[in-house]
Amino acid sequence: MLSVPSAEAEIRYHKWEVKYEYRSPDCYQKLVITINGQTPGPTIEAQQGDTIVVELKNSLVTENVAIHWHGIHQPGTYLYHAHYGLQRTNGLIGMIQVSLPPGVSEPYTYDDEKSIILTDWYHESTFEQATGLLSIPFGWVNEPQSLLIQGKGSFNCSTLGIEAGLCNATNPECSPYVMTVVPGKTYKLRIGSLTSLEALSFEIEGHNMTVVEADGSNVEPFIVKNLFIYSGETYSVLIKADQAPTRNYWIVSKVVARPSTTPNGLAIFNYHPNNPTTSPPTVPPVGPAWNDVEPRLAQCQATKARQGYITPPPHKSDRVIVLLNTQNKINGYIRWSVNNVSFNLPNTPYLIAVKEKLHHVFNQSPPPNGYDHRHYDIFNPPTNPNATTSTSIYKLQFDSTVDIVIQNANALSANDSETHPWHLHGHDFWVMGYGKGKFDIHKDPKKYNLVDPILKNTVSVQPYGWTALRFRANNPGVWYFHCHIEYHLFLGMGVVFEEGVEKLGKLPPSIYGCGDAKVSP
Amino acid sequence: MLSVPSAEAEIRYHKWEVKYEYRSPDCYQKLVITINGQTPGPTIEAQQGDTIVVELKNSLVTENVAIHWHGIHQPGTYLYHAHYGLQRTNGLIGMIQVSLPPGVSEPYTYDDEKSIILTDWYHESTFEQATGLLSIPFGWVNEPQSLLIQGKGSFNCSTLGIEAGLCNATNPECSPYVMTVVPGKTYKLRIGSLTSLEALSFEIEGHNMTVVEADGSNVEPFIVKNLFIYSGETYSVLIKADQAPTRNYWIVSKVVARPSTTPNGLAIFNYHPNNPTTSPPTVPPVGPAWNDVEPRLAQCQATKARQGYITPPPHKSDRVIVLLNTQNKINGYIRWSVNNVSFNLPNTPYLIAVKEKLHHVFNQSPPPNGYDHRHYDIFNPPTNPNATTSTSIYKLQFDSTVDIVIQNANALSANDSETHPWHLHGHDFWVMGYGKGKFDIHKDPKKYNLVDPILKNTVSVQPYGWTALRFRANNPGVWYFHCHIEYHLFLGMGVVFEEGVEKLGKLPPSIYGCGDAKVSP
Repeated sequence: MLSVPSAEAEIRYHKWEVKYEYRSPDCYQKLVITINGQTPGPTIEAQQGDTIVVELKNSLVTENVAIHWHGIHQPGTYLYHAHYGLQRTNGLIGMIQVSLPPGVSEPYTYDDEKSIILTDWYHESTFEQATGLLSIPFGWVNEPQSLLIQGKGSFNCSTLGIEAGLCNATNPECSPYVMTVVPGKTYKLRIGSLTSLEALSFEIEGHNMTVVEADGSNVEPFIVKNLFIYSGETYSVLIKADQAPTRNYWIVSKVVARPSTTPNGLAIFNYHPNNPTTSPPTVPPVGPAWNDVEPRLAQCQATKARQGYITPPPHKSDRVIVLLNTQNKINGYIRWSVNNVSFNLPNTPYLIAVKEKLHHVFNQSPPPNGYDHRHYDIFNPPTNPNATTSTSIYKLQFDSTVDIVIQNANALSANDSETHPWHLHGHDFWVMGYGKGKFDIHKDPKKYNLVDPILKNTVSVQPYGWTALRFRANNPGVWYFHCHIEYHLFLGMGVVFEEGVEKLGKLPPSIYGCGDAKVSP
Repeated sequence: MLSVPSAEAEIRYHKWEVKYEYRSPDCYQKLVITINGQTPGPTIEAQQGDTIVVELKNSLVTENVAIHWHGIHQPGTYLYHAHYGLQRTNGLIGMIQVSLPPGVSEPYTYDDEKSIILTDWYHESTFEQATGLLSIPFGWVNEPQSLLIQGKGSFNCSTLGIEAGLCNATNPECSPYVMTVVPGKTYKLRIGSLTSLEALSFEIEGHNMTVVEADGSNVEPFIVKNLFIYSGETYSVLIKADQAPTRNYWIVSKVVARPSTTPNGLAIFNYHPNNPTTSPPTVPPVGPAWNDVEPRLAQCQATKARQGYITPPPHKSDRVIVLLNTQNKINGYIRWSVNNVSFNLPNTPYLIAVKEKLHHVFNQSPPPNGYDHRHYDIFNPPTNPNATTSTSIYKLQFDSTVDIVIQNANALSANDSETHPWHLHGHDFWVMGYGKGKFDIHKDPKKYNLVDPILKNTVSVQPYGWTALRFRANNPGVWYFHCHIEYHLFLGMGVVFEEGVEKLGKLPPSIYGCGDAKVSP
């Protein structure tokens, strides 16, 4: 890692007001959650080592708010988003860009930079979605109505009847996003996905992209025609405006990994000085087949740490935790589980409960370290779909090296194994390897990449496959590790790691306000 | 008041779960807030002197909940409802019935009793309503889609286009409410209104009603054909099933005081053993004209304490506060104000702020004791519509007698003065008098009813009129006094009284959890 010249560090203040406002991001008017009137919210720009202070005024009338500073660690491209209920789905999201200190340069060159956030967009309210997910019969959210590129999409208003009054195809809010480039120049494009559900393919018609950064880490450059990006991931790619400059080109986002009915998201890659609102003369590229796993896995495996920027992983781990991903039922309710335990947050924050030894707050017995590897058939629906629910957490030895193997399996319906993007709070992890089928604890670790694994904070697990990652438990605290699909997390697809809380000093009194933690010591 | 034989008092436990569920109370499916699956929620039945314990599990995903035990003081009919944001509008409501101790009887007789709650119902979500109310341009909630009688109404599904799938006229949830009676018997009917907006007229086709109770106080009986009832009020009426028993009759609720487009609410008054679902053969009664103030004022003035049950008021008051009701603008936002001050709740509870002398929590200067009586023209829109906003509160001398005169005026548009039902927390008040036009502090108090004024907790103020009430500031605490129209309160139409907080012992640590009150002393 780079050392930070502290004399240069600044304190940067931001004042945010969070509230509901009517917006028409895909031409259809609905309530969204805005920050200072915007969704996506303002981009936080900072230099490595700076301190960011955000003073947030919650103007949601009856709701609380929690913001997650997704991935923040070192220079690179990060995200922030709501982390409470399904509020992220309402548009409470934004990007964080951390630049290098003066005198330190990136290992690639470009003329200018741009950034975009990709999302999926639902016309149902998050209250309706949450109620459906918590009901018998299960009310699934179904496929999103639109894909948005930097907060703009285009729903086909003509499909509506009486509600047509809420939809206006000429509303400037839903004119396509335009990225204007100068012919011959090279651009760094920061791309983040904060979809609630969908895995995406992203491409710019006729233009190759060179991947140079992932989740804030420099990547050994590789070229793609389309970039697969999962919810919670960020990438930086270099794009050269090297095509015929007399016309504009399509920017396309497309759902993969699910047989979606959602139309592709479209934006305009505008060659200056062409009219930015002129649609390209071509049919937009159709993108890759939704169910072709091979190119997705190939991109995962191509994403390695850049030479000269490798932080080598410890060669051995002190502990291996295998996390089986299954869809289950609890008392007839559909849930997602890890090792057949579906996660529930307690009412009192873990950090306080651990620090103050409030043992009644959560289940003190550790969650399972693995699953019945020998007998469990990952290729078929669970024989016994019943899971249990728990608040228990994994206690990690401080400064130990931990391997996590995420094992995918079949969901409740036959021939259905979904793609899950797993996101870890508080750490970057090394991505040690990917595999198909059932992880073999004896053979597969021998194939781990000990040479140049990428450091990430979000990683995908492909259908019927596994992903292995490694991290040092060296950040005192309590850390969520969860599927970044908003609805899967909501239904219990997460675990919690605790390490070194005893090393923390007195916690700030201001955080003592919830559940059984009302009175600070 | 009656003395309570304490040996008889019980502790009654209730366990409630509050959550969102899909319901179709008027045939149109939307999210409602339920208590144990019901809206209106379970009726709390108790005997005078009992202790009620309600253990509430909040299963709203991102929201807090507050329940107000509306009016609770002595035997009678009361209400409970949400008191946070616009959650009441979502159906978080119910009734409380307090019976007399054994050996004590009511001063009227009947064969059986029934109860109903009257509401208005909106298809828009409360989040959409709140966002509109807090926007420029102002997004008014408009007239409700339906009037519900005991949670049931009937929206005309055929007016819908694509949304028709959400509306099912044959859904049993929206079959009309049926009240079955035996010919010749007399019924006590408890009626409560928890409308969000509307003043109502209630009647049972062809049947007189004898009013015997209002807001928990015995009323000197009087007979009405239709009962006017304002949001927050309760009444008990006696009804004799004395009409031709061969058919059913309509029960009707109708909007008054606003030129509403909302169809009348209908239910069935079913004479046993007729088929309870058979519609009466007649056209439902059309009810009184919406804009005829005289019969409404007449009912107000007829509502007096019953002989033998009079609690005489103090003959003099120690203080008079006049509260001018106006609609105003603040920075272009439409608000409601009292003496040109629009109320805002601070983030820290008043009770804690006063008790712990946290002077920074709210504005310490007292709010105005009146308005510019000489120059203000109550019959026209305000010359200067701008108001200010404040968190300041009225400090009342403990055990003093306080007169409140609520003075109505013209709203922002010409020829518009709305009816406001004012509700006081923590006290019953004597209703000293009603008048038309501008209250005259020299002449009008001479006409006060010192003989048999009714004790109520909610009272209406008619267009361009005033209402005077008196209470003893003998209940240590901090008490809201506000218009019970949910949207008016939301827009600032309320004040707060404080009395005798210094007499309270240590506050329970469990209430220290909000704003600047996080750490208990």
